Parts: sequence; structure tokens; C-alpha cells
Amino acid sequence: MDLSQRSVAGVFSGKRVLITGGLGFIGSNLARVLAAGGARVTVVDSLIPEYGGNLFNLDGAPPGITVNIADVRDRFSMHCLVQDRDVLFNLAGQTSHLDSMHDPFTDLDINATAQLFILEACREVNPQIDVVLASTRQIYGRPQYLPVDEKHPISPVDVNGVSKNAGEQFHLLYQSVYGLRTRVLRLTNTYGPRMRIKDARQTFLGLWIKQVLTGQPMEVWGGDQLRDFNYVDDVVAAMLRVVADDTTVGQVYNLGSAERISLRDLAKLLIRVAGQGSFEIRDFPEERKRIDIGDYYSDSAKIEAAVGWRPTVALAEGLGRTVRYFREHFRHYV
Amino acid sequence: MDLSQRSVAGVFSGKRVLITGGLGFIGSNLARVLAAGGARVTVVDSLIPEYGGNLFNLDGAPPGITVNIADVRDRFSMHCLVQDRDVLFNLAGQTSHLDSMHDPFTDLDINATAQLFILEACREVNPQIDVVLASTRQIYGRPQYLPVDEKHPISPVDVNGVSKNAGEQFHLLYQSVYGLRTRVLRLTNTYGPRMRIKDARQTFLGLWIKQVLTGQPMEVWGGDQLRDFNYVDDVVAAMLRVVADDTTVGQVYNLGSAERISLRDLAKLLIRVAGQGSFEIRDFPEERKRIDIGDYYSDSAKIEAAVGWRPTVALAEGLGRTVRYFREHFRHYV
Repeated sequence: MDLSQRSVAGVFSGKRVLITGGLGFIGSNLARVLAAGGARVTVVDSLIPEYGGNLFNLDGAPPGITVNIADVRDRFSMHCLVQDRDVLFNLAGQTSHLDSMHDPFTDLDINATAQLFILEACREVNPQIDVVLASTRQIYGRPQYLPVDEKHPISPVDVNGVSKNAGEQFHLLYQSVYGLRTRVLRLTNTYGPRMRIKDARQTFLGLWIKQVLTGQPMEVWGGDQLRDFNYVDDVVAAMLRVVADDTTVGQVYNLGSAERISLRDLAKLLIRVAGQGSFEIRDFPEERKRIDIGDYYSDSAKIEAAVGWRPTVALAEGLGRTVRYFREHFRHYV
Repeated sequence: MDLSQRSVAGVFSGKRVLITGGLGFIGSNLARVLAAGGARVTVVDSLIPEYGGNLFNLDGAPPGITVNIADVRDRFSMHCLVQDRDVLFNLAGQTSHLDSMHDPFTDLDINATAQLFILEACREVNPQIDVVLASTRQIYGRPQYLPVDEKHPISPVDVNGVSKNAGEQFHLLYQSVYGLRTRVLRLTNTYGPRMRIKDARQTFLGLWIKQVLTGQPMEVWGGDQLRDFNYVDDVVAAMLRVVADDTTVGQVYNLGSAERISLRDLAKLLIRVAGQGSFEIRDFPEERKRIDIGDYYSDSAKIEAAVGWRPTVALAEGLGRTVRYFREHFRHYV
């Protein structure tokens, strides 16, 4: 990890931190790092089976983490939970693009309405809190140019993109109007230990890892699309860096990687790293094709200039660590 | 009006038309024109006192208009009401910028969640329906350049702008994903007979008209800000034109005017046209200042190129008609 445990400890030791979606993939990795650095962490998670929360994600975690089961759509719980915190990492979300089309109301409730609950609660009872929102590259839609920087037009291709965009805009609005200390990270594909591998709801790469480890062929839709990937430790480092820096308030930053790869080559790399596996190139299913974005990769120059962040874990290395993690803990994730 | 009654009759005669917000300012003017042209019009309105609905707006209207009192947040009513319609003019909305900050949840419910209900209903039971959404220039926020065209970045300065933007994106999304025949008009300040003049919830100009007619001084905040205005008949004409043209499906168009005027000069013009009145320049109230957008005027070249629309009623003429209307019917609007 880019930001060493020592420097994290310096900044967050003794801080009271709230993480929504804290039993999920990124949230739990973040909670572990913060707790190791001496922070007093409360994770909020609803443990809805289709989402990323998993109690095992905190197995063997450092002391100092409190688990609070609650749904971010529960306005009064959130009102209570944001009180007396120094920092909020706001990571809870509905992430599945397909689910957002099958049940658009739930997606909007979680990714927009609940975000407004959280922000109103902060404004009312804790206006000094530092907030980081985990947003998504999905809001850009099909890239009009590459790499995609933060000025790229917003043109979502699914309900998830619309809802997340509204949630993001609310965060920026509550900064400009009320002075809340919010900032936004637009994540690209993130992978690593503790990701959801049961299905493709978090990312197709999760499902691929399960398929590789169970001897099933990976289903590669299309195959030529270019994507970029961030290892979860790098994403955690980005969150810690932006929240430790006052100049990031009110700003939006892309995460991303200069290492771009086609889905076909990614499948080959995963097989090589795992020493097993196979894949099949498939035509897009119709409902998936309608919301696919084609090639995508981010320009993350803005966050590098602002806080010196850049990814440090190469894809082959990160995939290796991920495969090792899931080999060891497979039964807790399927 | 640009599109003559005769040509409206040709296109909409016998058509079954639904207008949400149809007892409101623009909706009622639209309903009257359509009914005069032989359309079978159903207006849906919740008559919430703070919004624009007013039963008097259909006083003396041509036959052929059915009133259905319902709230667009009532999902099952909307599901029923969109069935068997040829056209939906989707005009219901929460319009007050200040109210959206005091009660952000209601604004989001009406302007985003309810829009999703309506679109889901169309997709399920009437996918052939032609839809026009009335959106707003508010989604652009403070202009980064002038005049503002449709490519201008979206950067709302209030909850109303965020919610309306989400509602608009849902309309475009249901077009691109499901082929719904939606299009979006981003309205600038609209004025004319049947507008809300009780207060500034629809536009400050409504309140000014009341103040002029009651001998109170108009409160002009700032005064130097430039704005553009459309007379309601021109806005109605734009709606009829875009819905009658297949090439507009999936498109977004600004309305606007080449006639730009400072608020101070507008106040002077209104006094001259009315032959009475006075105004006071005031500093912005703090809560208003935080969400003000400064100078704004639209570039409406895109809709002119697409369907030949341009405003035909000059500001002095439109203000004259508006003042005459409210002198005659004042008691029904205050």
C-alpha cells in the first residue's frame, strides 16, 4: 500500500470513523487498515445477500472495529450514526448495473435518496465531519474520448449511473451550499481480497475468479473491450489520502490505472497467474449489450497532482494476491 | 402562437393526450390549445397548494378536457393513467429552488422517483407513447459560458437541479435502453397567463406581477443579472412541435430567447407595460444567494435547427398580455 501503515496511524489514530458498506469489499479492507492505525471504526452494513457485505471480511481484523447492522435507507439510524464522528467513508451502494434495470426503485433509493438522508444528517448534527463518497466511472456512460478525465460529459447508460450521479451531485451540493467537507472518488474496476465472487454483481472479475477456482470456463463477453483496474489497497490508499488533505474538499477525482488491458488478455493473465482455468468468448446477452459502455479507462492525473496518489500494485501482482486469498478462504465467499 | 390552431388540429385531432401537472401554468395553457385542436386531453394534477395547479386555469376551456386529481408519486394511479394514451406531456414537478433546499426529500420524490414510476409504467403498458419532459435550465447551475447550449456541463446549485437532472436522465435512458419515444425540453423562465403569482415559487416574475397589481414595490434582488424569458404560448408551441417530429426522439433541447434583459430593466419594463408599480433593489437574502446562478441565458439554436422553433412573442407584448389577464382574473390567483 502506497500510504504506509505508519503514516496512516499518524493521521487517523484515535479518530472516530464511520464506514457505510463497511462489511463490503472495499469498506472492510479500509476498516482493517484504519483499525491497524489506531482509529476507532464503526462499520455500517445491511448485509443484504445480493450486496457486498460479508461478516467474514472482518475475520482476524485488528481490534477497534464496531459492527452496526443497519440500512442506509433507514433515515433515523443514519441520523444517529453520523453523530460524533470525525470521518465518514460513504461506501454503501447498490452496485449491480443489471439489478438497477430490473429494480430501478431500489437502486435510486439506496444510491440517491439514502445519500440525501446521510447528508442531511451530517448537516444537522455533524457539519464538521469529513466525508469521502465512493462514486463510479459508470456515470460517464460510453466514453466520448479516452482516457476519461473528470471533465468528460456525464451520460449514464443505466439506472445505476443516473442514481449514483445524483448521489454524487448531492455530496458536492452540500459542500457548496452548506460547507460540508465532502469529496468524491470515481472508482474504476476494483478487485482484490474480500471482493464479491459469488456472481458478477460487483464486477465480472469476481465471477471470473470463482469460475477459475472451480474449474469452470470464464464467460468473456466480447473480449476486445479495454478496461483499467485498481487493486483494493490502492483504492484504500486513495481514500485515506484525500480525506487527510483539506484541498480535496468539494473536488471530484477519478481513480484509474495506466495499465490497460482487453478482457481477453485479462482472462489469459488470470489463467497464467492462477496456474489453472479456461475461458470462452461469448456474444453479449441482449440485456447486457444495451447497457455496455465499450472501451473504458480513466485519466487519474488530477488526484496524482492533488495528493500524489498513483496505483502501486501491478495487475499481475494484484491478481496473484487475490487468487491466493480466495484459494485460502473460498468457502466463505460462495 | 407559432404553430397555428389549424396545424395543431391537423396533428392532434382525436389524439389521446395526458398532461401531468395539467392544472398548472404551462400544462393548462397546453391543454386548452390541444382541446381547441380536437385532442382528447386528460390532465393529472395533485393540486398541492404550494404548486402551480389551479382549477380556474381551465375556466372556459374548450370541451374535451378531463380532470383527474392524482399525485405523480402515486405509482399505481400513474400506471393506470398512462394506458391508452398517444402522447404524454410530463410537466408535473416541484419547481421551487428554495423549497427544494428546505425539503429535499419531497423534491427528489417528485422530480426523480415519480419520474421513474411514470417511465416504468410507460415501458410496461404503453411503450409506443410519445413523451415530452419539461426540464429546466436549473440543471446547468452557474453558467461557465453564455449563451448556454445543451453541451454545457451539468452542475446544479440546488437540490431541485440535481433531482430534475436525474428525472431527465431517466427519460433519456428509457429511450436509449427501451426505445421509449422521449424527448426533453430545458425551459428557461416562462411567464404568461395562468402562472403562479401568489409567491415566487414558480418564478420571481409571478410575485412581481402580484406586487405591481397590488401597489407593492417589487423586490429586485441584485438587479444586474441578465435573464431570458419565454412567453407561455411559445413554450406550448415548442412542446407541440417536438412531439410531432420523430427526429426529436432521444434529444434534449434548450428553450430560450435572444431578448436578454437585466432584472432591473425587466422591473422597469413591467412598470411601463402595466402603467403602474415601483421597485426596490435589495441585497440577496443569504439563503437565496447561496443558490443563485448569476447571469443566465440560453442558446436555443438546436431546436430552431431541428423543428424551426423560435420565440415569436416579444417580452413587452407578452408582459402586456400577462398583466391584462391577471387584472381581469386576479382574485383567482391570490
